[in-house]
Amino acid sequence: VTSEFDLINRYFRRATPGALLGVGDDGAIVQPKPGNELVISTDMLVAGTHFFPDTDPQDLGWKVLAVNLSDLAAMGALPRWVLLALALPAADEDWIAAFARGFFSCAETHGVELIGGDTTRGPMNFCVTVFGEAPTGEALRRSDAQAGDDIWVSGQPGRAGLGLASLQGRCVLDAPAQAECVGALLHPLPRVRLGLALRGLATAAVDVSDGLLADLGHILEASKLSASLTLESLPTCNAFATVDADLVQDCMLSGGDDYELLFTAPINLRPRVEALADTLQLALARIGSTAPKGYKTLRLIDAKGAEVQPTRLGYDHFS
Amino acid sequence: VTSEFDLINRYFRRATPGALLGVGDDGAIVQPKPGNELVISTDMLVAGTHFFPDTDPQDLGWKVLAVNLSDLAAMGALPRWVLLALALPAADEDWIAAFARGFFSCAETHGVELIGGDTTRGPMNFCVTVFGEAPTGEALRRSDAQAGDDIWVSGQPGRAGLGLASLQGRCVLDAPAQAECVGALLHPLPRVRLGLALRGLATAAVDVSDGLLADLGHILEASKLSASLTLESLPTCNAFATVDADLVQDCMLSGGDDYELLFTAPINLRPRVEALADTLQLALARIGSTAPKGYKTLRLIDAKGAEVQPTRLGYDHFS
Repeated sequence: VTSEFDLINRYFRRATPGALLGVGDDGAIVQPKPGNELVISTDMLVAGTHFFPDTDPQDLGWKVLAVNLSDLAAMGALPRWVLLALALPAADEDWIAAFARGFFSCAETHGVELIGGDTTRGPMNFCVTVFGEAPTGEALRRSDAQAGDDIWVSGQPGRAGLGLASLQGRCVLDAPAQAECVGALLHPLPRVRLGLALRGLATAAVDVSDGLLADLGHILEASKLSASLTLESLPTCNAFATVDADLVQDCMLSGGDDYELLFTAPINLRPRVEALADTLQLALARIGSTAPKGYKTLRLIDAKGAEVQPTRLGYDHFS
Repeated sequence: VTSEFDLINRYFRRATPGALLGVGDDGAIVQPKPGNELVISTDMLVAGTHFFPDTDPQDLGWKVLAVNLSDLAAMGALPRWVLLALALPAADEDWIAAFARGFFSCAETHGVELIGGDTTRGPMNFCVTVFGEAPTGEALRRSDAQAGDDIWVSGQPGRAGLGLASLQGRCVLDAPAQAECVGALLHPLPRVRLGLALRGLATAAVDVSDGLLADLGHILEASKLSASLTLESLPTCNAFATVDADLVQDCMLSGGDDYELLFTAPINLRPRVEALADTLQLALARIGSTAPKGYKTLRLIDAKGAEVQPTRLGYDHFS
């Protein structure tokens, strides 16, 4: 029988030159660079709730880290370290090896070191905690959006939701659309470079994990503002063209799991945001604007200037 | 239906004056005090593996934090912050309220602030990540024990294992012994003050979570040493007197879940360790000594000076 310690040593112990002490003691030891604050985020992913139990382990290894790095991106933090706690029903070495490949592929892509964690037997569950740095006072918060700011979003929110709908048999996508949308679901790209570039530019930021409307709601609540979004300005892509328009709109507004960044920025910084899109080769769409708190928190405006109702508002794990 | 966010707000959001940003954004922000390193530890606890699914939620709330604080104690770190990620099969508000009471009771006792986490639906699972501070270079590691050091242990390892044996019907304890041992299992007291006092005194430390022999093995492996333990010197208590001697020895040597500290210290510091026991009103037993790496990593010596074999060596979640 291969023991827990052997498996951890073989697959999860790598050099951690950026930490004072890495895997293998009661705790890890780190120190943020002078002049920096430590930004911390944790996410728990459960089989059946956040991913299909038969998801390819290499994809899963990538994703459990990517969704956490997305939180650091939304804070404008530079990723540094990660902890990985996992419960598995059995110690299947091939599965663990593939999971570790995906996990470290994401870690190395983003310069993150695995400094500790925990391994136990149980229903499949991953709890990942990431640590990033931001210069003191410069991390992006949800609470600092100002009335009259533009609202921006990166990439094409809705693709992951459409990928999920396709895997669940709720729609049929052609092969390129299927590859694009399922790819967005299984292999999200955390917008780390965008997050770093938004320091000093965005007034507030959040990642689109629960759905665009729900996550915008978090900024509005924290910043005590209202907003209007123009549906026409929501970014679209070829994959969306072949699918029922109601489903596309539902995925764009309420589909989770995209890990794009939604942020607010002053109107006078529009040219800088547009230049950033060029620099990063990443679509940044201006989709609405904030306003003082009003009788309604969020208004959706269609092409004719009329207000429309979204069908559902977001994803709540307990509702 | 009460939503996830409502429940989190109601039960898990408290003031966090020691953090720069607490619960409610994509991440938390902290900064260790100048001249300090950040010590980080994470543990995942799963129903059925680490605790009985019907454990009183208030006890469980205490324990999931206590076992993590024990890791900080073993590093000689001062507890500061905690993240709590939990998966629950349903949002049972009474259960959550009781769990939160136990969790915050432990947090307040140890001056720890809850700065973030995650809540999701799934088989019951708790992943707790704790953060402590230690002055630069002073954290206790497993790897710095020296040949010829004394080996010390706090309290009475074996009580939690005996409590578990009793709950599993493997032994019968009288009422006071039952209360003591089951109490040790359900409501462990992390040795935080001891850990802090051991800075500059112990050469290496570990907490007894997997069993005394297994955890001593971690120090020996990391420090490249061997050791001998004298069975006679292992601390005992009234609860042990009424139980089968083999079971007691098994619990003392291999029972997990005690969260006492096992540490090494130079012989010339014996008086300081003994004085510390008085100061903290906590038994500290000198149970053996380390030696250079030899033909055998660990020798157990009985009252007659003969070597004995332990029945099992520790707890491995995957063996």
